[in-house]
Amino acid sequence: MIKKRKSLEEYKAGILEGNRAVLAQAITLVESNLSADSDLASALVQVILPYTGNSIRIGITGVPGVGKSTFIEAFGRILLDQGKKVAVLAVDPSSQKTGGSILGDKTRMEKLAADRRAFIRPSPSGKTLGGVSSKTRESMLICEAAGFDVILVETVGVGQSETAVKGMVDFFLLLMLAGAGDELQGIKKGIMEMADGILINKADGDNIPAAKRAKNHYQNALHLFPPSESGWYPSVTIGSSLTGEGLNDCWKKISEYQNHMMERGLWNENRFKQRLNWLDESIQSILGKAFLEHPEIQKRLPEGKEAVKKGTLNPIAFAKELTGLFFKK
Amino acid sequence: MIKKRKSLEEYKAGILEGNRAVLAQAITLVESNLSADSDLASALVQVILPYTGNSIRIGITGVPGVGKSTFIEAFGRILLDQGKKVAVLAVDPSSQKTGGSILGDKTRMEKLAADRRAFIRPSPSGKTLGGVSSKTRESMLICEAAGFDVILVETVGVGQSETAVKGMVDFFLLLMLAGAGDELQGIKKGIMEMADGILINKADGDNIPAAKRAKNHYQNALHLFPPSESGWYPSVTIGSSLTGEGLNDCWKKISEYQNHMMERGLWNENRFKQRLNWLDESIQSILGKAFLEHPEIQKRLPEGKEAVKKGTLNPIAFAKELTGLFFKK
Repeated sequence: MIKKRKSLEEYKAGILEGNRAVLAQAITLVESNLSADSDLASALVQVILPYTGNSIRIGITGVPGVGKSTFIEAFGRILLDQGKKVAVLAVDPSSQKTGGSILGDKTRMEKLAADRRAFIRPSPSGKTLGGVSSKTRESMLICEAAGFDVILVETVGVGQSETAVKGMVDFFLLLMLAGAGDELQGIKKGIMEMADGILINKADGDNIPAAKRAKNHYQNALHLFPPSESGWYPSVTIGSSLTGEGLNDCWKKISEYQNHMMERGLWNENRFKQRLNWLDESIQSILGKAFLEHPEIQKRLPEGKEAVKKGTLNPIAFAKELTGLFFKK
Repeated sequence: MIKKRKSLEEYKAGILEGNRAVLAQAITLVESNLSADSDLASALVQVILPYTGNSIRIGITGVPGVGKSTFIEAFGRILLDQGKKVAVLAVDPSSQKTGGSILGDKTRMEKLAADRRAFIRPSPSGKTLGGVSSKTRESMLICEAAGFDVILVETVGVGQSETAVKGMVDFFLLLMLAGAGDELQGIKKGIMEMADGILINKADGDNIPAAKRAKNHYQNALHLFPPSESGWYPSVTIGSSLTGEGLNDCWKKISEYQNHMMERGLWNENRFKQRLNWLDESIQSILGKAFLEHPEIQKRLPEGKEAVKKGTLNPIAFAKELTGLFFKK
């Protein structure tokens, strides 16, 4: 299905004006898998690059049920009240299967979505995780060029997309629930060490004492673990999307983090690294795709892989054989 | 410098007999960077594969000064006393620079080295981390074919080689010192979440109370963090390489872990995954090397990379341009 596209200049002008319809169409272009669209999308991202980089990029994760969408709705409105323009993007490697998150997001974030200073973009529909993350990065740049001050990137998946999101944001926020450990079951090992901040969510009514206990537990525990290279210890706050309590504190912590990083020259350094990693990942992704689509590789790989797995074929020797086939012609 | 090599059959026969001189020569062959050696090494690993896989592979890490070598010496002797044959390999990405670890290891592990049931192999001299880790994997297989029951893989580097070692062992042991947090400064974030077990080292004399407190702290803290997918919580033990106290407990924990994993079918599953990852890494390493050595890439990459870093060039567009150059001819 070929869709009608705008010209490069039309997209650029519309984005820089903050035209929401053009912004949405530009993201659709970026998310497209048609190769003609892909070239236009690359060119578009290139021409808007000088207008990017001025937002705070915040990744938000947590297990299903922790209340990510209601948090984003409440948190987003606090930012709007401060005069900020807020964009919400979602990374959801599983959306191809469930298809449910799009409607869900729209329903749950309806107040935020109704505000003209906010822009909510549901998950791109499926495809590979690497692809989705690359498309989210491009969408983020487009939102920045359109003048958004804060980009919230929500991970909808469980444990698969966190590394990708960590690699594209300035601050990585983990939402948790108070409780005696059960709430950890859904969190993948290593996610907590990625967090720049933790918010104990649903800290309202009868939950408040438990949330405060959880906050103290985690704060103590985090001090037993190595700090990040920046010297920043992840902050732990409690908050409620229902009452709005604690959400300002959460924003304050993010601002503190920004100051901490900027004073040390690490804010930009992190973005430098992220851009170089994005380049590396893009090259690896293209090389890997070409490799796996090579007919000789497709013929030889499945059987050899099984033998490697069983331990009857030397992985190094097999890698040499396969790359020899790949480079032969 | 071309060295005289044995034939494939001579290497194989010597290794299977447990001939230490041949074993050492075979590892030298594996560590060689001559392409003729590389083919012979791959063939050798292939023919000994049926005799591999029967050891317990233990990775040992910790900051410099934590006492890794003295621990390995003491721990290794306990294993020898149980009738086990013990091989010690080291992964040291920094040895090319310092050159000091080889002598250091030999001096510090002299009692273990003097025992005919032990085999100690200092770090391969430098080269890339990926290369070293691949060579260590091959050396490990050769030691297994030579009849060693326990392979201890020591990371000598600080924070760079841990992921590589985690990816090649069954159990990953982190050595720590008691103290109020200072000892964490040298540990890279994420390493603690990789550990299957933690040993508070140097728990002797006046240090014992502090070591016990540290043990309790870490045990409590670790329960606040997500368990691994296997359901195993990292054990925390205290030990002294000086008195030998606690080292049997450490071995018991490793055996418990082995039972835990075997009962769930995860012991082999972990090795399946490691072999497939090794294959992936080998393919990526060969493709990446060919890419970076391509003359057109070498001409275009430095300037473009700088532009990507600064945010003036779209990483996706640049990746397409470079891979286009790579596949052109």
